[in-house]
Amino acid sequence: MNDIDLNADLGEGYGPWRMGEDEALLQVVSSANIACGFHAGDPVIMDRTVRQAAARGIDIGAHVGFPDRQGFGRRVMQIDAGELASMVVYQLGALAGIARAAGCRMTHMSFHGALGNLAAADAALADPLVRAVADFDPALIISSSASAAIEGAAARHGLALASTFLADRACDEQGLLVPRRLAGAVIHDEAQVLARVRQLLREGTVTTHGGAVIPLRAQQILVHGDTPGALALARAIRAEIEFGGARVRPVSALLADRLVSSAHG
Amino acid sequence: MNDIDLNADLGEGYGPWRMGEDEALLQVVSSANIACGFHAGDPVIMDRTVRQAAARGIDIGAHVGFPDRQGFGRRVMQIDAGELASMVVYQLGALAGIARAAGCRMTHMSFHGALGNLAAADAALADPLVRAVADFDPALIISSSASAAIEGAAARHGLALASTFLADRACDEQGLLVPRRLAGAVIHDEAQVLARVRQLLREGTVTTHGGAVIPLRAQQILVHGDTPGALALARAIRAEIEFGGARVRPVSALLADRLVSSAHG
Amino acid sequence: MNDIDLNADLGEGYGPWRMGEDEALLQVVSSANIACGFHAGDPVIMDRTVRQAAARGIDIGAHVGFPDRQGFGRRVMQIDAGELASMVVYQLGALAGIARAAGCRMTHMSFHGALGNLAAADAALADPLVRAVADFDPALIISSSASAAIEGAAARHGLALASTFLADRACDEQGLLVPRRLAGAVIHDEAQVLARVRQLLREGTVTTHGGAVIPLRAQQILVHGDTPGALALARAIRAEIEFGGARVRPVSALLADRLVSSAHG
Amino acid sequence: MNDIDLNADLGEGYGPWRMGEDEALLQVVSSANIACGFHAGDPVIMDRTVRQAAARGIDIGAHVGFPDRQGFGRRVMQIDAGELASMVVYQLGALAGIARAAGCRMTHMSFHGALGNLAAADAALADPLVRAVADFDPALIISSSASAAIEGAAARHGLALASTFLADRACDEQGLLVPRRLAGAVIHDEAQVLARVRQLLREGTVTTHGGAVIPLRAQQILVHGDTPGALALARAIRAEIEFGGARVRPVSALLADRLVSSAHG
Repeated sequence: MNDIDLNADLGEGYGPWRMGEDEALLQVVSSANIACGFHAGDPVIMDRTVRQAAARGIDIGAHVGFPDRQGFGRRVMQIDAGELASMVVYQLGALAGIARAAGCRMTHMSFHGALGNLAAADAALADPLVRAVADFDPALIISSSASAAIEGAAARHGLALASTFLADRACDEQGLLVPRRLAGAVIHDEAQVLARVRQLLREGTVTTHGGAVIPLRAQQILVHGDTPGALALARAIRAEIEFGGARVRPVSALLADRLVSSAHG
Repeated sequence: MNDIDLNADLGEGYGPWRMGEDEALLQVVSSANIACGFHAGDPVIMDRTVRQAAARGIDIGAHVGFPDRQGFGRRVMQIDAGELASMVVYQLGALAGIARAAGCRMTHMSFHGALGNLAAADAALADPLVRAVADFDPALIISSSASAAIEGAAARHGLALASTFLADRACDEQGLLVPRRLAGAVIHDEAQVLARVRQLLREGTVTTHGGAVIPLRAQQILVHGDTPGALALARAIRAEIEFGGARVRPVSALLADRLVSSAHG
Repeated sequence: MNDIDLNADLGEGYGPWRMGEDEALLQVVSSANIACGFHAGDPVIMDRTVRQAAARGIDIGAHVGFPDRQGFGRRVMQIDAGELASMVVYQLGALAGIARAAGCRMTHMSFHGALGNLAAADAALADPLVRAVADFDPALIISSSASAAIEGAAARHGLALASTFLADRACDEQGLLVPRRLAGAVIHDEAQVLARVRQLLREGTVTTHGGAVIPLRAQQILVHGDTPGALALARAIRAEIEFGGARVRPVSALLADRLVSSAHG
Repeated sequence: MNDIDLNADLGEGYGPWRMGEDEALLQVVSSANIACGFHAGDPVIMDRTVRQAAARGIDIGAHVGFPDRQGFGRRVMQIDAGELASMVVYQLGALAGIARAAGCRMTHMSFHGALGNLAAADAALADPLVRAVADFDPALIISSSASAAIEGAAARHGLALASTFLADRACDEQGLLVPRRLAGAVIHDEAQVLARVRQLLREGTVTTHGGAVIPLRAQQILVHGDTPGALALARAIRAEIEFGGARVRPVSALLADRLVSSAHG
């Protein structure tokens, strides 16, 4: 069984408002996707989350989204790809700056909400956005659930990609997430979620929404921090991983190992 | 006569709105302070302004302000210094990121509006803000009109400082800007502004609001881009500088020279 | 020839930024659609615009849009119709409140930008939005370019409707605006715009993008305040109307006349 | 013992974020101060809160604040009084509009956070703000803790005033709230809070921060919805009131009675 990264979306408050149980989740995960002030987050929350993550050796990533706090970045906005690319870079720069001033380093990034869904499904959007990430920092890891569009763009622009398994979301035969509005798209039963984690770790497969078993490789398991019970679920997933003899390790360490082992292979 | 930097605040639009004559000013100045999305500016405008400046060899700096677009960063906001420091770093990171993705480098920063006035007058605020700048990037130049608070903090935190002369603003015997509400605080007469520039360049002095002549050293002359006639004034100041035999050069080049000459001195 | 209302979008600045020549346009038009703080406008600008309009006997209307200043309400946002209805009422209430505090009355409303385009094309969206307008104030006039969706909803919910002619925009055989991206969609030639106004006023017809002549009744001619030359065009249109013997009158007065004449008819 | 209004600040979420236990508090209180989208609240939350309050016969009031969501309206902003007056009217209009579209009526208003503190302490600010309220709707009740500035302005501009008792905040001999930073300014002990309520209801007095007993008349007791334990405290206060034989009634009903009784007196 391979080591794996346990990953959560954190820092999703704004001003006086909080979302999720950040402090507790930081005890459990090995990497954090931190909101950058567009769909959530603000400089104060970003700074606090970055420092807490760094203090625990947790990887720091940027979670970039649409400029829409009211809709939490979950509403599609019809924005030109070039303008979106500037917004992506702005958010990356802001979080990287806060990390740098705190004496640490941003290791990865992922797309949030509606922006993530659009980019995952549309190569014509994924390409300029991923290219902007590479223009900003070619050493950043792109973190994404299965998407040919994003994987292709990452390969084209020379970025490492960490494949993310969303343990509580059903996927289709291409590995793409099934829309939330379909029955069974979100898996609420903890035992079932854990069984999916076990299957991924042991067999390297996932059972699709339609019932097929397909191979799936993932370097990360994502825990949604804003759902009730997220913390208990994260702990159970971590226990499941460690019970199987694997370790929970930051994504940047996993990918560095992979580079080393392929250099030696 | 020494070479000097001609500096302007640019990129002060937002979304569909424009302010000032950026394209024309970019033909005249040698460094730009670019708004970072808090008091003005957005990722699209920042990206465009950075690329235009870089294409002309103009220094790119961050103009950081209060999070208050509606008030254009000119309204004092009672924000804790630690929180402001995070906001400063966020803005620096965002512009540095956009510069980096565009293949260029951010060289300096300055404080805008009410934030600038507060920091210039209050060492207890200037210190954590300037320290945050140094934590973010110790190679950044701080650009400021005369202020013991900011100069002291820059020295303490090891940052180079470029002293800015505001040609159209009266100052007191300490070199501090006289409040705008006082008669004569803003100098509207172009001939008088040019005479002040000439006096600075040739004599190294400025005549204060009260009529005293005090020594003043400056590496930059600031042109306010949002005032009517700014463009004509900028051209006249540039002509004045060049007529005197000096050159208009980016602040980073001037300070690099100074380092070289002090190393040889 | 019938009297007609000359209508412009005003108050489209934000904070320190201005758009269009409001003061001059207020000398020419008879009704104003005032931005309500979502896509443009703020309380200070709204208050000033309302008072200036009231002082000249100009009708005051709310121009409601998406909550997207950066995109000026021109970017489609995927927002639930019920949530949009609340946003419409919020904006109507805000402008009506400012009018009331200034001692005058809001007479009409129209949908701005992407929200207007969506509502005009989709009865399932137009209905809840128009119903929200009626719930807020059944005496408000809905101002809209030709749209079966909005006209149907206005009839269903008992609201008076003022049909708006966009003199500088081509329409199809249903009277719907041709998308801006098509060649000839926006008519830049002043003589041609004036010819279209003349044709409307004298013949009650319009020549479509495809060349057909279709009947069109309109109570308002809209002048876009944010396009260069808007002011000269508005003056020319006003002169054209008055040269033909008709008067430029606020939409509320025109519709009151219509009610009186139909009561007597 | 007199009947009294039990009052809470509600609708203080924004977009995806919630604050306080609105649904439960709505079972206990008799009037609500609803955030209007500036320091908190948005059209969707406002609409939901208004309808829930109306369904339970609870008075609906506007809680108006500084335009500063990030700081929750608790940071002083240096804004011109005339501009603030426009912002107050905008917020009043927005909530009144939402109430009107929901078929109910806004009865009162209060100033939130830093705006409330400034207005309570400064007659030169209180006057134009209260005048703006009166210009908007002379039938609105102003809800305020003891403040000579606001009481004077309300009297001058003909507005009814409901005096609010903050059961968990210490006051000085003038009845003004003692600053939060002082020890004992916020009373955390529930038994002590209840004893203060009892003293107010039975004796019509309050014991000040300094230990003096001063007379205090209040028509409302305010419960802070965002503090932990707020719900239990609200229930205990309600029980205390009803145990003493008085009733919890909306402020508009209490003031209507007062008018009737003074007419008959």
